[in-house]
Amino acid sequence: MVRLAKRMETMEGSARIVRHLFSAMTDPEIISFGGGAPAMEALPVDIVREIANDVLTRDKRGLEALQYNNPIGLKDLRDVVARILLEPKGVHAEADDIMIVNGGLEAMNLLCQVVIGPGDVILVESPSFVHCIEIFEMFQAHCVAVETDEDGIVPDDAERKMKEYHPKMVYVIPTFHNPTGKTLTRERRQRLAELGSQYDVLILEDDPYRDLRYSGEELPPIKVFDKTGHTVLANSFSKIFSPGSRLGYVVAAPPIMERLLDAKTATNSHTSALAQVLCAEFFKRGYFDEHLKKIRAIYRERRDVMIDSIDTYLPKGTKRVFPDGGLFTWVELPGDINTTELLQEAAAYKVAFIAGEGFFVEGGGKGRNCMRISFGNVPPEKIRIGMERLGRLIASKMK
Amino acid sequence: MVRLAKRMETMEGSARIVRHLFSAMTDPEIISFGGGAPAMEALPVDIVREIANDVLTRDKRGLEALQYNNPIGLKDLRDVVARILLEPKGVHAEADDIMIVNGGLEAMNLLCQVVIGPGDVILVESPSFVHCIEIFEMFQAHCVAVETDEDGIVPDDAERKMKEYHPKMVYVIPTFHNPTGKTLTRERRQRLAELGSQYDVLILEDDPYRDLRYSGEELPPIKVFDKTGHTVLANSFSKIFSPGSRLGYVVAAPPIMERLLDAKTATNSHTSALAQVLCAEFFKRGYFDEHLKKIRAIYRERRDVMIDSIDTYLPKGTKRVFPDGGLFTWVELPGDINTTELLQEAAAYKVAFIAGEGFFVEGGGKGRNCMRISFGNVPPEKIRIGMERLGRLIASKMK
Repeated sequence: MVRLAKRMETMEGSARIVRHLFSAMTDPEIISFGGGAPAMEALPVDIVREIANDVLTRDKRGLEALQYNNPIGLKDLRDVVARILLEPKGVHAEADDIMIVNGGLEAMNLLCQVVIGPGDVILVESPSFVHCIEIFEMFQAHCVAVETDEDGIVPDDAERKMKEYHPKMVYVIPTFHNPTGKTLTRERRQRLAELGSQYDVLILEDDPYRDLRYSGEELPPIKVFDKTGHTVLANSFSKIFSPGSRLGYVVAAPPIMERLLDAKTATNSHTSALAQVLCAEFFKRGYFDEHLKKIRAIYRERRDVMIDSIDTYLPKGTKRVFPDGGLFTWVELPGDINTTELLQEAAAYKVAFIAGEGFFVEGGGKGRNCMRISFGNVPPEKIRIGMERLGRLIASKMK
Repeated sequence: MVRLAKRMETMEGSARIVRHLFSAMTDPEIISFGGGAPAMEALPVDIVREIANDVLTRDKRGLEALQYNNPIGLKDLRDVVARILLEPKGVHAEADDIMIVNGGLEAMNLLCQVVIGPGDVILVESPSFVHCIEIFEMFQAHCVAVETDEDGIVPDDAERKMKEYHPKMVYVIPTFHNPTGKTLTRERRQRLAELGSQYDVLILEDDPYRDLRYSGEELPPIKVFDKTGHTVLANSFSKIFSPGSRLGYVVAAPPIMERLLDAKTATNSHTSALAQVLCAEFFKRGYFDEHLKKIRAIYRERRDVMIDSIDTYLPKGTKRVFPDGGLFTWVELPGDINTTELLQEAAAYKVAFIAGEGFFVEGGGKGRNCMRISFGNVPPEKIRIGMERLGRLIASKMK
């Protein structure tokens, strides 16, 4: 009976399959390296309670948390973003260049509303984040893969494809990439921003992991090199504050921001003021620095244990990324092991991961011997146990 | 430089104009009957603080508030909706028929993602809620107006237009309508549900004001009469809990719900878990009944003072709706006074309202002598002062 919109037909992609695969895995004994959730230990619940207790009173601040707010978001929180999160990284933005959104992903949805029509081309990294691909599919975009190597997206290939496909935008996760954990070099960041200006293509920079750095040197956002307003920076509070509060932000030049506000208004009016007030106070009261130090230590240990476990338990010839931060590493298995098939047997070994194929829009079996391994939400001792199980499963396939 | 999507061109509608008009009015001395915000006195900030203090601890509940959640929403809150908000009104729904969304308006956005393609027809009441029209415009729908009278939308005209336009849906606010304050009769509710089934048209029932009843007899939602799954019920926690938390819900039959979940995932993954946990506890701990009693008393008084003020201060021949609930009344001025022009002089009289024209998709100057008057967020003594000012302004035009 339901006559669906055409865009629903293009949404039968890999994200849905990934989701269904996962919802089937409800066994609590499974150690899952699948999801990208932060560690429970990294959620600042005690701080949020303290703030709520202090702020939710019948004065201006408390009422602000419960009353309607503006589409662009709470001024306080936009000031926090400008002063604490952007300025130190070299991004000069005013509060009015920043909109607060309902989680980082909403920025992609809204930018698509503003610029993407059916058939428009979006260049994405090969591989790219499967849940953003799903958004692009809903907007009936044609996603074209751009080559990546150990340093991230290859600008020469991006330029070639800008000339060939005249894309509306390039979607890129420059820092501790999802799914690969790789980081784009400084030179390539600059080059990408320049290509956006030169070919009149938006560079959508999605940078949710950037503050979770455990080693190596900090790099400027692509947005720093943007001289023409072609780079739109999307970021999230999910990894540095809390994913459940559903807060993110987008930084864009005025002509784009004006339209993003229209799209936001016609999507959900504004982002939860309750969540925004609590998050703004978290930063304004100076909790962020110490919290970040604490969660970096948690994740650094997990990263190190994960890399050691891969090297210990997975077979010879396995390639893996050593991520300088973030929550993921990317594993390429030797031989012709198909990880999608492997996953079907993983439940019997009480372990889970995400098979690599779904992250490649080009299809053709690319990434079929790869897997995304998430270490953020698994305690170190369980990482060893889970990876030993995974090692046994893989070994059983190599006989 | 920005190459916009085509849908942005269709969004230059009246909602944007209304917004711009309003953002210009920042004078704190203006008494505004414009916005639809709840009374500050109706925001349960003390209760929310108490709940936050109790719940945001390092146990399952507190961590749930800060961690990722599901696209469909918190099971607890969906149970609350089913048991406390739907069941007593005769709507039988299970938790899985209910999705929690980021404010009531998001339900309209998501349903459009699922069913509306460019050029698809949506039947709307004449007049209808301007911010929903804006959503429909973003999805490039063609909105066609259906006649209304003192009992709300006229089913015979809806049927005529179903035959003529083959619409995808009918958007209707049956209870204490925005902007008119009118309520659809029981017979028409049933007839509308039946027309949806008969002509395979979705009935999108938007019912955010229904619990704010101050007089008259409660009527069942349209959804009660739906035997085929053609009615989709959208509702909001904005008027009964808090708009700033941005919570709403949508009730739909399984084939629609499955697609709504895809659209939700590709819009913002899920609604703020932090807000959901606090709201669920508000109901589970039994605060709702007393709170509702309290806010109804606040609004009933304001409604009564508003109606009395209209009858006292506005000129002879003025028609107004006596709303049995909600936050609005609708005023039709005598003579040929144009309320859009009137509004431009209202700032000088330190009073504001929303001009009627913008609520009519059919244009042609319809509603040009009407205005939406909101009484929810203005204390009784200020209602009298503001309406006296408005009366003087109108009188000055009638000379």
